[in-house]
This record gives sequence, C-alpha cells and structure tokens, in this order.
Amino acid sequence: MKPLWIPAAILLVLPQAQSAPRVVRYEATITNVKYVYGVADPVGRLRAGDVLESNSLDCFGNVIRKPGDTMALVKGDNPLTGPFYIEGAEPGDTLAVKILDLQVDGTQGVGALAPGFGALNKTNYTPMLNPDLPERVWFYPIDKATNTAIFKANDSGHTVRIPLHPFLGCLGTAPPGGESRMSITPGEWGGNMDSPQASAGHTVYLPVSVAGAMLYFGDGHAAQGEGEVAGTGIEVAMRVRLSVDVLKGRKIKWPRFENDRSIMALGAYRPVDDALRIAFTELIAWIHEDYGMSELDAYELLGKVGRVDLNEMVDPNYVVVAVVDKSYLPPKTRR
Amino acid sequence: MKPLWIPAAILLVLPQAQSAPRVVRYEATITNVKYVYGVADPVGRLRAGDVLESNSLDCFGNVIRKPGDTMALVKGDNPLTGPFYIEGAEPGDTLAVKILDLQVDGTQGVGALAPGFGALNKTNYTPMLNPDLPERVWFYPIDKATNTAIFKANDSGHTVRIPLHPFLGCLGTAPPGGESRMSITPGEWGGNMDSPQASAGHTVYLPVSVAGAMLYFGDGHAAQGEGEVAGTGIEVAMRVRLSVDVLKGRKIKWPRFENDRSIMALGAYRPVDDALRIAFTELIAWIHEDYGMSELDAYELLGKVGRVDLNEMVDPNYVVVAVVDKSYLPPKTRR
Amino acid sequence: MKPLWIPAAILLVLPQAQSAPRVVRYEATITNVKYVYGVADPVGRLRAGDVLESNSLDCFGNVIRKPGDTMALVKGDNPLTGPFYIEGAEPGDTLAVKILDLQVDGTQGVGALAPGFGALNKTNYTPMLNPDLPERVWFYPIDKATNTAIFKANDSGHTVRIPLHPFLGCLGTAPPGGESRMSITPGEWGGNMDSPQASAGHTVYLPVSVAGAMLYFGDGHAAQGEGEVAGTGIEVAMRVRLSVDVLKGRKIKWPRFENDRSIMALGAYRPVDDALRIAFTELIAWIHEDYGMSELDAYELLGKVGRVDLNEMVDPNYVVVAVVDKSYLPPKTRR
Amino acid sequence: MKPLWIPAAILLVLPQAQSAPRVVRYEATITNVKYVYGVADPVGRLRAGDVLESNSLDCFGNVIRKPGDTMALVKGDNPLTGPFYIEGAEPGDTLAVKILDLQVDGTQGVGALAPGFGALNKTNYTPMLNPDLPERVWFYPIDKATNTAIFKANDSGHTVRIPLHPFLGCLGTAPPGGESRMSITPGEWGGNMDSPQASAGHTVYLPVSVAGAMLYFGDGHAAQGEGEVAGTGIEVAMRVRLSVDVLKGRKIKWPRFENDRSIMALGAYRPVDDALRIAFTELIAWIHEDYGMSELDAYELLGKVGRVDLNEMVDPNYVVVAVVDKSYLPPKTRR
Repeated sequence: MKPLWIPAAILLVLPQAQSAPRVVRYEATITNVKYVYGVADPVGRLRAGDVLESNSLDCFGNVIRKPGDTMALVKGDNPLTGPFYIEGAEPGDTLAVKILDLQVDGTQGVGALAPGFGALNKTNYTPMLNPDLPERVWFYPIDKATNTAIFKANDSGHTVRIPLHPFLGCLGTAPPGGESRMSITPGEWGGNMDSPQASAGHTVYLPVSVAGAMLYFGDGHAAQGEGEVAGTGIEVAMRVRLSVDVLKGRKIKWPRFENDRSIMALGAYRPVDDALRIAFTELIAWIHEDYGMSELDAYELLGKVGRVDLNEMVDPNYVVVAVVDKSYLPPKTRR
Repeated sequence: MKPLWIPAAILLVLPQAQSAPRVVRYEATITNVKYVYGVADPVGRLRAGDVLESNSLDCFGNVIRKPGDTMALVKGDNPLTGPFYIEGAEPGDTLAVKILDLQVDGTQGVGALAPGFGALNKTNYTPMLNPDLPERVWFYPIDKATNTAIFKANDSGHTVRIPLHPFLGCLGTAPPGGESRMSITPGEWGGNMDSPQASAGHTVYLPVSVAGAMLYFGDGHAAQGEGEVAGTGIEVAMRVRLSVDVLKGRKIKWPRFENDRSIMALGAYRPVDDALRIAFTELIAWIHEDYGMSELDAYELLGKVGRVDLNEMVDPNYVVVAVVDKSYLPPKTRR
Repeated sequence: MKPLWIPAAILLVLPQAQSAPRVVRYEATITNVKYVYGVADPVGRLRAGDVLESNSLDCFGNVIRKPGDTMALVKGDNPLTGPFYIEGAEPGDTLAVKILDLQVDGTQGVGALAPGFGALNKTNYTPMLNPDLPERVWFYPIDKATNTAIFKANDSGHTVRIPLHPFLGCLGTAPPGGESRMSITPGEWGGNMDSPQASAGHTVYLPVSVAGAMLYFGDGHAAQGEGEVAGTGIEVAMRVRLSVDVLKGRKIKWPRFENDRSIMALGAYRPVDDALRIAFTELIAWIHEDYGMSELDAYELLGKVGRVDLNEMVDPNYVVVAVVDKSYLPPKTRR
Repeated sequence: MKPLWIPAAILLVLPQAQSAPRVVRYEATITNVKYVYGVADPVGRLRAGDVLESNSLDCFGNVIRKPGDTMALVKGDNPLTGPFYIEGAEPGDTLAVKILDLQVDGTQGVGALAPGFGALNKTNYTPMLNPDLPERVWFYPIDKATNTAIFKANDSGHTVRIPLHPFLGCLGTAPPGGESRMSITPGEWGGNMDSPQASAGHTVYLPVSVAGAMLYFGDGHAAQGEGEVAGTGIEVAMRVRLSVDVLKGRKIKWPRFENDRSIMALGAYRPVDDALRIAFTELIAWIHEDYGMSELDAYELLGKVGRVDLNEMVDPNYVVVAVVDKSYLPPKTRR
C-alpha cells in the first residue's frame, strides 16, 4: 500500500494494525524549518494517539561542522520542525506530548560561547560596558557504544566523557493572545525551555491557545548542565519519536511535565525569582486541584520535599521547573 | 584526669591518646546562644584538628512545642552556638569545617508559615499590599528507626514520611569589613545559608576575616526542600560533631563545600540571578586555580555538566550553590 | 476636490498647499482596532513628512463609563489604532514620529485597580499565594478650562486636581524577528512603553523591522505617576496629531526620544535593573556615535548629570528611560 | 566662658543665648573617622534641638588629589564622621535630622571609575567573566562664584559646567538587630543612601535602633546623576550644619525625607524592583497613617502623581525614593 504524502512530499502517514497507533513521518530540512512559534501553515496534521516520527536540526541549522566554522554561518537560531496541526485541539484544552524516543542524529555535538549569550557574561538584555568574551566553539564526538559525548578542552589536554541525556530544547505551541514568538524565547507556550524534562519517558503538557495547537520542536541537546550557564548544551540534530493526545477542557497557563516518579510545573521570565514563583504557584495549584491538598499544606510540603530545576538562565526568559515526587502526594482525586 | 571547663563551666576538653584528635565539648542553651555573627567573647577555643562535640537549638529557640504555640513565643530567630575561637586562624586564611555527624536532638521537628517569610508570599523585602497569609505550624514526629520525619497535613488526613537529611542551616564566621550580621542572613561569611551541603560527609570552607575566625552554627534542619520555599525546613535541635582545620594563606571570598564526589561554590544575594553569578564565577575560579583548566574551558564544561542547588529563596539574601563532580575535572594541580 | 477614502471609508487624505505637509485623517473605532503589534493589513499609508490626524480608544476600549462598570466588560486591553504603512521604511531604518498635539477625547478618565496588575501587588508574572486585592475603579473628570483631572477618593471625601500631561501609552512598530506582540507589552518595537515622553513636543524614534514599519498607537493617558505603580494612568481616549519621517540607514535597537532639551534612550525588560542597563548603554552609544564622546567619558558624565525616568513597573516588561540634557553634551558630530 | 571639649579635644559646645539652639562643633579627620555603622564610643553627644557644625572627608578619605593618584591609595571607602549619641533617643523612636547647610569643603571634586563598581559594568555582586574596565579618575574644579563644578573629558576636549547640589551620600544610625554595617551599604538604618534628598532644606527621618541612635554621616557629593550609574558622584569633603530632634514613640522601619513640598520614603535592596516596593509601601503607610487616606486610595493616587527617584544602582543595595507632593494629600491628621 502506498504511503500518503502531504506538502512537499515530506509527510508520511503509515497505515497500522487496528490496535497500534497511526505513525506519521515527517522529515525536517533547512528549507522547511521555522523560526517563530505562531500560527502558520501546518506541515502535517496529527490525531490524538498518533505517533510522530520526525527529526530536528541542531540550534545552528547544522552548519557548525569543523574547527574554523563560526557563528557568522548561522542563518537563524533554533530552526523548528513543524508546525503540526493537532486535530480537535481547541483553545482551553491541553496538549499532551509523550516523548517516546530521542536519538542523537549524527556523530558529534557542538558547544559554543557566543559573545552576548550566557549567564556569566554580558548579554543583549543584561548589557555591560565591559569588553566582550571571545567567540569559541567546542566539538563533542558522540560515542553511541558508551552513550557518552566527549569534552575536549580548547586550552589544555583535558578530555572527559559526559553521559548522554538527549532532550528537545525547543517544544511549544502557538502562543496565547495572538502572539508569534521567536524560537529563542521560552514562555507560556513552552518554546525554548531548554528543559531536560523534555526527554524520553516524560509527558509534556502544553497550553492550547489556537485551533490545532500548532506543535513545534527542535534544538536537541545530547546533554546539558543545569542552568545551561555558558549558553549552549551539547547541540545536536535529533531523531524524534513522540505521540500526542488532547485533554479536552483542561486549561493550563504554563507547561507542565510528568513522568513515573514526579509532577513538574514550569515558569519562565526574569529574574529567576519570578520564574520560580510562577513554577511553584503552578505546582501548588496542580497539587490542590488534582490531589486534593489545601494550598497551604501543599506549600508547606514543598518547603520540605520540593525540588528546583533551573533549566536555563541564558535565554531571553529564564526557566525554572518545580518538582515534587508523587510518592509524597495523596492519591489523585481528579482524572 | 579532670576535664577542663571554661566559661560558665560548659566547655569540656577531653584528653586523648597521642594519635586521636582532641575532643572539645560544649553545650549550648538558650542562655548562651547568640543572634549575630561577629566578633564576640568566644565560648571556647579550638585548635586545628580538634573535634567539637556540641549541639544547637532549633531556629525558634526550642519554644514551639505543641499545637497552639505561636511565633509570638520566639525571642529571636536562629539562636547560634558559639563563637569558637580557632587558634592560628588569621584574616586571609580559610577555615575548613568537617562535619562528622549530625543527629536530630529530640523527637519532633517544626515547620511554620510565618506571614512575611517565604518565597511565594509577600515579605519584608518584597512587600505587597495584598493581605497576609495566616500563621500556621506543622509538627513532624521524628522516627529514628526508619530515619524519617512524618508530614501530617493540617487541612486533610494526608500523611507521608520524609527521609531525614540532617544539616546545619546556619554555619559561619565573623563577617569581613568589621560587620556584624544577624543570624537570619547569609553572605560572604556563610551564615544562614540553609545549605543541605552543611551535612555529614562534607567539608565547609569559610573565609577567615578576623583573628580566630569566630565560628558559629545553629538552625538544624532534619530535612528541607530545595529553595525552602515555604520559609522553613523541618526545624530541629541538633547534636553536632565536627572538626576544624585552618588552611593558612588560602583566601576565599565566599563559602565553599567539598565531599568525595563534588566541589561546590556558594553565592548569596538578590535576585537569584546574581547569587548564581557569584556561585558560578567562584566555581570557575576554583577550577581554574586548583585544577588548571582555563576559565573559558571551565565555563563551557559547566554549561554541560554543572549543577545548581538553590538552597533557599526566603532569607534576606538568596543562596545558590554551583556544583561540579570531580570526575569531570583534570587532576588537582594545587594542594 | 474629493477626499480620498481607503478601507472602510475611514482614511481621509487632504490635499494641501505646496509647502504644507499632507494631512491624512483616520478614525479609530472599536471595530477597527488591533490588539497585537505585528504585520497586518495597513489601515493607511503615510509618506515621510505627512501629518496624521487620528484618535485612539482608551485602554479599556472605552467601556468603563460609570460606577458599577467592571473589568469584565473589557474585550481586550490597549486597543491599537493602525497599523499605518510608512512608505519607504525598510528594515534597518529608523522611524521618527513627531508628536504634534494630543488632546483628551472626552470628559472623564478612568483609573482602575485590577487584581493581578500593579507594582505593589501580586501579578501574573510575580504570583503569590496571598489573597487578591479587590477590583476598584476611580473616575477622573477632565476640566479643560484648568487643564486638570480631578481625583476623588473612594473611601473618604478627599479630592484634588492633577495637571494634565497627555501622552500615548502605546506607540510602536512591528517587532523584529518575525514576532507579533500583545499590545500590553513593551519591548524593542516600543509598544506599551507608558512613556510620558510620548507627548507633544517630543520626537519618538522607533526601529523599523519590516517593510513599511507598521505604526500603531493607543492607550492615551491624561496624566500618570512615575512607575505607574497602581497599574493605570488616567486612562482616556485621545485625539492624536503626529507627523512621520524615515531616517534611512540609521539603525537603532531600542526606542529613543528627543525634545528641545534632552536626548533619551529606553530599555524594557525585567528586573528594572536590566531595563536600566539597556537604557543607559543605549544612551552612551548614542552620545558616543552622534556627539563624539568616548564611552568612558560619557559613562562618567551620566553618573553626574544623567536622569532616570522609570516609566512603569507594571506591564509584562518594565520600562526605564535614561535622559541627558543636550546642554551637557558637545556639539553633535553626526547628522 | 570656656568651650567644652570632649574626646581628643575635638568636640566644641558653644554656649548660646536663651532662645538660640546650642551649637556643637566637631572636626572630623582621617584619624577619627569610622568605617562601620554600629554601636561605638560616641565622639559627642547631642540634645534635641542642638545644631551640629562639623565636616566630612570625601569617600576616598581625601587622598585622590591629582592626576596619577589611584584607588590603591584609598584606605577605606566612605569614612564616616561620628557617631553622635543623641540624648533621649531610644529604640522605637525616630531621629529627625534637619540639614541646615552643606558647603563643599575644598576646591575640587573627584569622580572615579573603579573596576567592579558601577551599574553598567560587572561588580562584586554581579560578577561576569568579561574583562574589567580600566580604572579612571576625573577631577572637577569647584567654582563657588557660579556654584558649578566643571566636567573635563579625559579623551577629548569637551568641558561643561554642572550646577552644584551638595548632599551627604552617607547618613545613618546604628542598624537594628545588633548589626554593624559597612559604610558602603545602605539599608534600614540609612547609611550609604546616596540620596540627593539628604541636602539643605530637607529633614531626614531615621529609625532609632539603639539607645542614643548613634548618628553618622559622610560621603559628600557636590552633585550626582540619578542612579549614580558610573559609581561615584562628584566626591567632595563637606562642611556640614545640621540640627537633630527626637520623635518619641514614633517608629519607622525605613528612612524618610520631608521638605516644604514633598514627603518621601526610601527602600533599599536588590533588585531595584524590591527597593521600589519597599519605598512605595512605606509611602502608602505614611499617607494612610498621617494623612488619613485609605491604602487603596493612596495606591491609586500614587499611580497618578507619585514620583520615583532612583538614588543609586551601584552600592551593595540599590536605593529608591518614592515621592509625593503634599499638595496632593489631604490635611495631615496625625501630629
């Protein structure tokens, strides 16, 4: 049976056995990526339960390949795969994206110190009169046998292996309020969250603000330190396998994550203080509404067992994820 | 042989076999605690290598004991044990405090929501016109058999066990610049860091700013969530066993921690952004000076494997600890 | 000669004597306003030198008219007049908007305390668990004879006159990077700057990020305190008279203002600290490039004679304007 | 009658006619200044109504005198004159300091760019990895005939006159809570507020936290830009004439200012956002308690007529003064 191709012959929908989910395939290339989260012509349409098999380019559009390649080659940051129109998703619903599998798509990752980007140097939004830091690039060979990336110092012989933890730095929907937002920015719509939580085994909940939700993703990281302080993770192209679901009539204001162990709420703005306030008040609301604890009991409990994951302090908005293990919560009261 | 008692007959120095460290004992009570880090008459003197066996009151001075006890009973926050004069410590040296053992001193801990204190409500330094939250207290029975504390919700029947991780919320020396600082505040001198890193198995490095360093500690926590968002940990009195050493001629600006796995640098101020900048620039300086990596290589590496521990976002200054595992670093080049 | 009407018969271009500027008239109503800065079908086209005579609705869409009217009546915040396509404006140019005259369009202004909006209460981006403040509305009769608005206390008999200083809270172009931004937000494109500098006698310089620049305005204020701390100015509909010019090949990153006395640079983000850093580094760049002072001399001089205007600390991004009087600068070296 | 000399023969109390205030004279020199606000042996005692005629050294201890003098010569920042014990002042009272006259004490002022200090460069508490700015000094001849200081550019021939507005950058009492604080820091006790409001014609209200209040002052500025962005004002030694009064039983948490036109409340911390929240909630409390307006009416009114003076964004804590003109307030209800 012939596959079913859609725009530019790049979207493939595979027929499946009755009980198996439908698999949709889509191949992102530099000619079909986007640089803005917003309403755009969809590159494909997904139904609740569908599995999408696709890929993403790295945050540089895959152009930094060898020593001597510079940021000047980059045509746009964080090229995005998508958007995918999710059938039946309406404003006020929640889009649940289950990340099934992420595999580094290539044999090396890239890290870069780009002047004006980073937590410990002057930036566009924290400008200073001090001189710039120099531009620098580091290459990270990916060793799939050991599931590691290899750091090699530029200024000495030090080299060390870093375990892979592949995740999507960018994952988002069309923003609320009719906005379109650059792929470099995180916010209510998700976006450039740089959340290691966007990895296999996690469900990512995103607000639906427009008909079809408009799902985008990209900016794969093979691994990343907390805070992403130097401005990049180990930037890689990625093979992506995920499924989508729509929670009808469930409204959330900010992205959320869930895995077997924990529930997690995200906040994004500046300073970190306010990102944390958003994340924790969202998490308390979640615990209150779905697990039946009072707000003050939830607040107290988080003061004793809550965890903070500062995803990044380098993008235009900073991202904090507030985490609590389900084992500390009463049984869920809302389905 | 008779023990050697000093001021108020509360300091006991035990003679030891040749090779064993000298053990000094001191008992803190509500009548000998302090509420300020600074220069004061020492309650005892310690030599490099000495082991101190002592105790601390809880952050409320042990007065919140049963339902109905309110914050109005508290005479002063964070009563401190000390100061101990460290023989041979001079400005420009570093005091190394090795935490040998911490045991909860009692059968229950206390958590409290005190209006004006917390990350998610208005405070003295983030005042708002919104109405106050109510004052609330939670009691946490300590179960030493299972090494847990028990959370019991106020507004529902939910109850859950929390593993103990005892640490000293307060640990510090006399501040630099001739300052004396309230026991509620963290800063260059350590102080109310609320760092879970101040626990058994860790060495805490503190700047020495005055002759004798003047070591204080207190504010034991049986456990605490990251960020301590509701304003308290599980507040307990503590039995404390630690040893001290002096690193002559080693100058640090901010507290540092070390254990078998990691090195860790602390920053404290507002907003969290600046606390993080302090912590990570200090950690990079440490890596550069002691492990021989260039600053830019260290910056890049931390962007890939660094960790952020937001100790608290509730005290007058907020505390971030930047962490890197030694396994990622080259061999130490400076002793 | 017949006037020339364009879309919806609402744009009127008046023929003029040779030397006089062309006057274009446009009437904004609730049916033709926009709620997003971005690329949209223009409601009119202006040439350099044209004078636009138009109007704007108040920030509530003119629906809060009498005691008992509540925020629930408001369909969207800050309805915008426009966009106007400016002939010849290309990305990399600067749009100069000269504000010729602003007159309050009506007989009363409105102030409102909307829970979740304001500098001294919890907000969407600084959420707290404290209870909300109540919603409140104040009406300000406009007395054109004395050029004042009248404040009348809600909870007492106090009443006092406030001198009018009419300005446009919203003034902006399409944002850079392909973004569309809600009319509530200020940024590089101008937007909801709430700058009293957007008043008669000032020229407002805005970055041109798309062909035609796309000029929008609205959110008239009859007067406003610095910081706009309670969340609103004296909100009014406005009669607007302005002219436009295009500075070809002059690229600016952030809005700027100029009047006879001063040059002024704007920064917008959170916290205020970073908005100030943007504003002052922009002002130093301006002084350096156009007036020939070195950056360090300009920095020093601003430390002695610079002024700070905190326009607002209530919108999603906070706005600081850095000001220096031309009398302190050397003669302009660049035209 | 002989003058009455106290410690080091430097305090002179002049007998006065019955109705005139007693005049106390005290001469500060580099050998009797202090570098910490706190409890110390007083250099003199003042009674309510006394006039103090004294002086202060400049913030560098008067050591930067000629080109080539560097920051390395400075023994301590902000040497303070005092403390003066105020008879009858007890914790919970308010000390009112009326500034009668300030005269620049010398013929030149100094401005300096000290690496690590300033709003637009990396600092101790906003550290960055970017390279330092160079150290620079500017000298400002004081022309008493025209009441101006003369700015002379370092890198060009530009020179311009700046009107004098002499004020005391430092003015404070012993801090609350038993703290001693460095003379570089502003806070509840006043301290290094860098407030142009501490000038002739203003009354400065300071909290009394210890018996005798312990009044200190110093750090005269001949003029200063708002925000003091480059890190210094026009730093000068000062001749000081002030009188003191004690408001028994009036407790304030933060410094306040008053002149014929306005009442003003100060907040100090980081980020600027929180300093502003402190200043405005204090001003609203003042209006509510002394002028009888409800808090919400006062909030609304300040949103329309309030002013913000960002005194400085360079010291360890940032200082905001919230201002309202008395002409907007109802008659005072509390004396």
